[in-house]
Amino acid sequence: MLLESYKIASHNDSLLKGHENKLAFTRSEIAGTEEIIQKLVDFQIAIPSWALGTGGTRFGRFAGGGEPRTLEEKIEDVGLLHTLNKASGAISLHIPWDIPTDPKAIRALAAQHGLKFDAVNSNTFQDQADQEHTYKFGSLQNVNKAIRKQAIDHNIEVIKHGIELGSDSLTVWLSDGSCFPGQLNFRKAYQNTLESLQEIYAALPDDWKIFVEYKAFEPNFYSMTVGDWGQSLSYARKLGDKAYTLVDLGHHLPNANIEQIVSLLLMEEKLGGFHFNDSKYGDDDLTAGSVKPYQLFLIFNELVEGMDARGMNHAKDLGWMIDASHNVKDPLEDLLQSVEAIMIAYAQALSVDRKALEDAQENNDVVRAQEILQNAFRTDVRAIVAEARLRAGAALNPVALYRELKVRENLIAERGLKTVSTGL
Amino acid sequence: MLLESYKIASHNDSLLKGHENKLAFTRSEIAGTEEIIQKLVDFQIAIPSWALGTGGTRFGRFAGGGEPRTLEEKIEDVGLLHTLNKASGAISLHIPWDIPTDPKAIRALAAQHGLKFDAVNSNTFQDQADQEHTYKFGSLQNVNKAIRKQAIDHNIEVIKHGIELGSDSLTVWLSDGSCFPGQLNFRKAYQNTLESLQEIYAALPDDWKIFVEYKAFEPNFYSMTVGDWGQSLSYARKLGDKAYTLVDLGHHLPNANIEQIVSLLLMEEKLGGFHFNDSKYGDDDLTAGSVKPYQLFLIFNELVEGMDARGMNHAKDLGWMIDASHNVKDPLEDLLQSVEAIMIAYAQALSVDRKALEDAQENNDVVRAQEILQNAFRTDVRAIVAEARLRAGAALNPVALYRELKVRENLIAERGLKTVSTGL
Amino acid sequence: MLLESYKIASHNDSLLKGHENKLAFTRSEIAGTEEIIQKLVDFQIAIPSWALGTGGTRFGRFAGGGEPRTLEEKIEDVGLLHTLNKASGAISLHIPWDIPTDPKAIRALAAQHGLKFDAVNSNTFQDQADQEHTYKFGSLQNVNKAIRKQAIDHNIEVIKHGIELGSDSLTVWLSDGSCFPGQLNFRKAYQNTLESLQEIYAALPDDWKIFVEYKAFEPNFYSMTVGDWGQSLSYARKLGDKAYTLVDLGHHLPNANIEQIVSLLLMEEKLGGFHFNDSKYGDDDLTAGSVKPYQLFLIFNELVEGMDARGMNHAKDLGWMIDASHNVKDPLEDLLQSVEAIMIAYAQALSVDRKALEDAQENNDVVRAQEILQNAFRTDVRAIVAEARLRAGAALNPVALYRELKVRENLIAERGLKTVSTGL
Amino acid sequence: MLLESYKIASHNDSLLKGHENKLAFTRSEIAGTEEIIQKLVDFQIAIPSWALGTGGTRFGRFAGGGEPRTLEEKIEDVGLLHTLNKASGAISLHIPWDIPTDPKAIRALAAQHGLKFDAVNSNTFQDQADQEHTYKFGSLQNVNKAIRKQAIDHNIEVIKHGIELGSDSLTVWLSDGSCFPGQLNFRKAYQNTLESLQEIYAALPDDWKIFVEYKAFEPNFYSMTVGDWGQSLSYARKLGDKAYTLVDLGHHLPNANIEQIVSLLLMEEKLGGFHFNDSKYGDDDLTAGSVKPYQLFLIFNELVEGMDARGMNHAKDLGWMIDASHNVKDPLEDLLQSVEAIMIAYAQALSVDRKALEDAQENNDVVRAQEILQNAFRTDVRAIVAEARLRAGAALNPVALYRELKVRENLIAERGLKTVSTGL
Repeated sequence: MLLESYKIASHNDSLLKGHENKLAFTRSEIAGTEEIIQKLVDFQIAIPSWALGTGGTRFGRFAGGGEPRTLEEKIEDVGLLHTLNKASGAISLHIPWDIPTDPKAIRALAAQHGLKFDAVNSNTFQDQADQEHTYKFGSLQNVNKAIRKQAIDHNIEVIKHGIELGSDSLTVWLSDGSCFPGQLNFRKAYQNTLESLQEIYAALPDDWKIFVEYKAFEPNFYSMTVGDWGQSLSYARKLGDKAYTLVDLGHHLPNANIEQIVSLLLMEEKLGGFHFNDSKYGDDDLTAGSVKPYQLFLIFNELVEGMDARGMNHAKDLGWMIDASHNVKDPLEDLLQSVEAIMIAYAQALSVDRKALEDAQENNDVVRAQEILQNAFRTDVRAIVAEARLRAGAALNPVALYRELKVRENLIAERGLKTVSTGL
Repeated sequence: MLLESYKIASHNDSLLKGHENKLAFTRSEIAGTEEIIQKLVDFQIAIPSWALGTGGTRFGRFAGGGEPRTLEEKIEDVGLLHTLNKASGAISLHIPWDIPTDPKAIRALAAQHGLKFDAVNSNTFQDQADQEHTYKFGSLQNVNKAIRKQAIDHNIEVIKHGIELGSDSLTVWLSDGSCFPGQLNFRKAYQNTLESLQEIYAALPDDWKIFVEYKAFEPNFYSMTVGDWGQSLSYARKLGDKAYTLVDLGHHLPNANIEQIVSLLLMEEKLGGFHFNDSKYGDDDLTAGSVKPYQLFLIFNELVEGMDARGMNHAKDLGWMIDASHNVKDPLEDLLQSVEAIMIAYAQALSVDRKALEDAQENNDVVRAQEILQNAFRTDVRAIVAEARLRAGAALNPVALYRELKVRENLIAERGLKTVSTGL
Repeated sequence: MLLESYKIASHNDSLLKGHENKLAFTRSEIAGTEEIIQKLVDFQIAIPSWALGTGGTRFGRFAGGGEPRTLEEKIEDVGLLHTLNKASGAISLHIPWDIPTDPKAIRALAAQHGLKFDAVNSNTFQDQADQEHTYKFGSLQNVNKAIRKQAIDHNIEVIKHGIELGSDSLTVWLSDGSCFPGQLNFRKAYQNTLESLQEIYAALPDDWKIFVEYKAFEPNFYSMTVGDWGQSLSYARKLGDKAYTLVDLGHHLPNANIEQIVSLLLMEEKLGGFHFNDSKYGDDDLTAGSVKPYQLFLIFNELVEGMDARGMNHAKDLGWMIDASHNVKDPLEDLLQSVEAIMIAYAQALSVDRKALEDAQENNDVVRAQEILQNAFRTDVRAIVAEARLRAGAALNPVALYRELKVRENLIAERGLKTVSTGL
Repeated sequence: MLLESYKIASHNDSLLKGHENKLAFTRSEIAGTEEIIQKLVDFQIAIPSWALGTGGTRFGRFAGGGEPRTLEEKIEDVGLLHTLNKASGAISLHIPWDIPTDPKAIRALAAQHGLKFDAVNSNTFQDQADQEHTYKFGSLQNVNKAIRKQAIDHNIEVIKHGIELGSDSLTVWLSDGSCFPGQLNFRKAYQNTLESLQEIYAALPDDWKIFVEYKAFEPNFYSMTVGDWGQSLSYARKLGDKAYTLVDLGHHLPNANIEQIVSLLLMEEKLGGFHFNDSKYGDDDLTAGSVKPYQLFLIFNELVEGMDARGMNHAKDLGWMIDASHNVKDPLEDLLQSVEAIMIAYAQALSVDRKALEDAQENNDVVRAQEILQNAFRTDVRAIVAEARLRAGAALNPVALYRELKVRENLIAERGLKTVSTGL
């Protein structure tokens, strides 16, 4: 399904007056809006190929209709999103769910939709039909050298696919760990994993990064071999300069202060990227900003402060990706909501009065520090975010336009009602 | 220290033009602002007498200066707050920290400051100097009948004090529980507690309520004898129509869905009141809205919906109180921030498009339901809250005026630097 | 695969001398061992039909071999377990995974293996291929009356199957809830669920029980409509005398004191039954006793104390069932380990010196109370548990015999390597 | 109060026969008991000077009687414990609660009781009466250089006291952190803390160690500047070879896998020592082994495995200390229970069949691995622990003898009923 630009223009025209009123008011509330708007225009969030279909839990999956059946259709879906918000200009592939058989054609198709290829993702947490060894007891950590070798080779294969597509980073998320006390020797599991990662690292092109993602629990329920930021950092340090930690918001123990972790990883020069989502209990993979929007803002507050302190480029120096699952929402609408929530948090963080905050901190004026942050959070920045979309050629209200144009209905008509995407 | 009304007027004058601009814009964003403003004017949050001094932890207490040394000074402090925000028109006393020796005079003093007496609170979690029996092993649950009797008598005494002051409710928070497996027979502890509460209940005037507060842990670290809403509801049911559950936001296990508890207690006609604060880890007693402002909004969303469904009066039919501790902030500034955050959450909840939300729910339109709630949350309602203050004769920006007038410095000059309030 | 009794006899003979030595010593350590042994012989734990195959997570499933392909094979597997331990004399069916097409034959087959039919379980958390309406947005809570009706009818159907098989209870676990704030009206969801349960309750035979199971989260990640024991109790009270709460150990928020919940539910005369498993993070469904064996003992300590206080029959008056998932273990070995751990905890609880404990509690002698409990826990009761098996005609060491006899290898030979059981 | 050795001998005589029976049986169950007993004899757990009085919470403190009023009396109390169990041969002082005015005399007194001085502890989480600057907003992290200097100087002072007493390590636990978002710049707080620690490190004698203790929350409730093992390790790495991480069991987020942290810190050669206690909710500071005895065993399992893998001396190469609070128990009885629980866990870990466990791990035999660990845990090792005491000249049953001899009654007679120890 193609979304012609005149439809966006017509949608925007109908909303323009209201938008301009709001924008004018917002400008009177926030200093430096022009600079903020430009940063928002530049900011792009990658969409993972597995997020385009309805997710599920171990208790079941309630598929929606019109889900993409092929890599090509997934790229079209991300293209659609990007047309609607001009903030989703990248796709992150998951191998082997999305092996590009004709990389050149895939690259051309993506380019047509204005999309780049973000980090490629390996998968050693499931067995594939044609696979020699099972990952039941782990992959890079496995006590069996042949199984480790298989998992290493798979990662190297993924890098190759990535090179062909123009990606420049590999995300390694391992489900490796144990379900019962005694199952693993933690030290040996660490060491096996480190050696395996070192072999993968050796296959990494010079200008690539490797992201070592951590997770506190699930699918292993006693220990995870890359279980927290401390462990991920330890691996990344031993691997070398191209290795970084990747933070997924849902991968922490209850009550963890994620924004502090982000700040310290930036300080250690080892923060590599982000998987956005939201959660109340565990790795719930809910829409970004849907449960704890203030936390999302606080995280962006640290990101902006920390990246600026190191002179980093917000748009380019870290990897930004959504990693969510959509059990009860239309996946595309969910992704539009996630991107919007991320943009809002980013805009709020950009509008924090840094000088005043620093003064308050230097004077231990806790009341004032809270007021400064909460003022940025409570001020309605949505008109600024919408303006950034407008300038980039996207829709003022992407979800509304998506519904007006009956996108889902069209996709169902094209693809059928009972399609099932690869992914979780 | 007296805060003359001309000072407020002058403060408001200086901010009026900016305020009116914002208010006008907000009116264009939210339907029914007049009705919302009136509800905000009517809404009063009680200030507990123990929240006027610097709090502490078991690791230490860093007292500020100018803290109230007597009940009279505490009333003056609440009077000050109420003058500043006209939303703190009640004080909640804690016996024996604040025994009124001359109730008539105390009542007159409070009336002078426009204050009522909210729920009175008993204390059987600490031993007092002149006390016969120790509460080391609990009070209403105690295996020793004489100790239970002492605790019952104390509660009845507290009711008497409350009657003299014009209060009409008793809040019973029990620290009763156990620190180690085996210490208690849970069933007998429940039964002893129930019998004790029944004796207290019998002493309750006809038009009074008793609030049974629950808490998941601390200061007992294995079990609490009124540990969750299920237990509190069970006591309240057995006690009778005057008994209700009181919800303190910090008294839950990690990740609890408090808004659902609130909704169900309203449905069961057993929600009695609220202790507001915020927390990240446990009963952290932080400023309301400082850590999880969206949760606070969601709770108010259920309160408004549930009270309206039963035709309840928002301002009168539930007890509203702050219960926080102020380790690193000026307690009065902290209380102003808490009241402001509560008012904002209430205003947001009042501005939710209920009809649209109900439609979305009836159609399982989860995306739309989220948009409706988040629209109410993201819209800046602060001008409405300020307008309610303006109409009630309070300050447009209470914290700013508090600082301009150097209230704390004046209090220190009056009371000294090393005063220590009773309380935690 | 049939396990002839001479094989058990021969296995036992080879271990008998060592066993008798241990038993003699244990008798010298614990008072009243004969009575304990008899209670252990009488105690039976139901095996759920879905626990006989390898479980999985949303990230994948690593099937083992020789898994039962039909209800008949599942009964054979439970028969095998029961032959090995004489403590698994019941099977709990899950409809529609295990619809008995010829109930008479199935009953006869079960009787042949010495098995009864425990609670039957309905499933409205997944859509079945032939189903008219989807449960994507809940079943008994659904805003759509037709969907509620479908779910009610299914439960009534399950009762009918249960009657045919000689079962006398229905377990209702609902995944109903919501993933996002705003999705549900909590009160209406409760009321719809209650009405639906009332219709099911009306279809219940006079001598049946209905168990209302609660769960804190998953697969819904914002709210669960039967989320904690307080909610389950509220439903059970409104339903009537045949309705009870069912406790699954993994269905709680972090740090919940489950043993206290058990004690209070017994006191309220509303505890109906148990789903045993263990967990570290959430509903991890690990082997009972594998992570928190002391908690399991403390729970049994309350069960024994509370059932004795009400004169209940340990073996008959509550429903006992395992509910676990086996991602990295042979399911049958896992179940043997779970039953063993439960028997150990029960034996320990039976050996607690109740009189001494009561004395310690009455005297607030916390040190002594801990010593009494820990003495019962630290004393090795395994010889008593083994003796109970020996007397019942089972194996002294079921797991060892299972391996000696190469049961799994035989099952694979019979059924094939790539079988997949129905279930999670 | 002096405990004469004949009283111990007489106590032991009366229990000897029963003990020998049990020991003989235990020997038949566990291989290598002689070696285990010797290791138990060598193992000493330091008692912190602040654990000798009744602890409290922010809600109150229920003092017991006969608490030590001076450092001398504290040493006497630890001497008493050590006489009873010969496993508490060290005391850990907390400055400024226990400043030794005459170090020589204190050393002599300690030697008389067979006690060494373990790690000395600094305190910058409370203000002392004579202190120039307040630690309200942190110490080593403080934005004010003069306050950092004061805290650094205090730590150097503590080292000096330690040198005089023959200690060889400094434990730095910081309550530094923040209570509200915005209060701190996390990066600057880290950097200030690091610089401060570097100055302290520079003052450390060559043969000393510095332990950097971490804690997830409390008394700061938003962030802690040394909040988890990852942060502690980061500081320790930057400080140098004499810096290590110290693990306190209660200082973690809910559900943390502490045994894995222990294993990895040993692997990183940065585990320095331990603070033992137990908890259900937070830093509850309960008796070691009273809530999660299996976790304590699993931690010792990693300690034994990891220390053996690096050829470390169990008794000397790590620091072992209790850090608990005793709100409802006699502190001395509580400490005897804690030491006993630690010794049991250590003995269980020593009795694990390492070769078999390694085989099971190498073969992914998860069922067998669990059986090996649980066999070690379920086997009753108390006779071995008692035998170690007997050989060292201590009491077979320390708590029983403590009660027989009416030690607490004697201490009250000597010191009075209303004494209050320094400490929490």
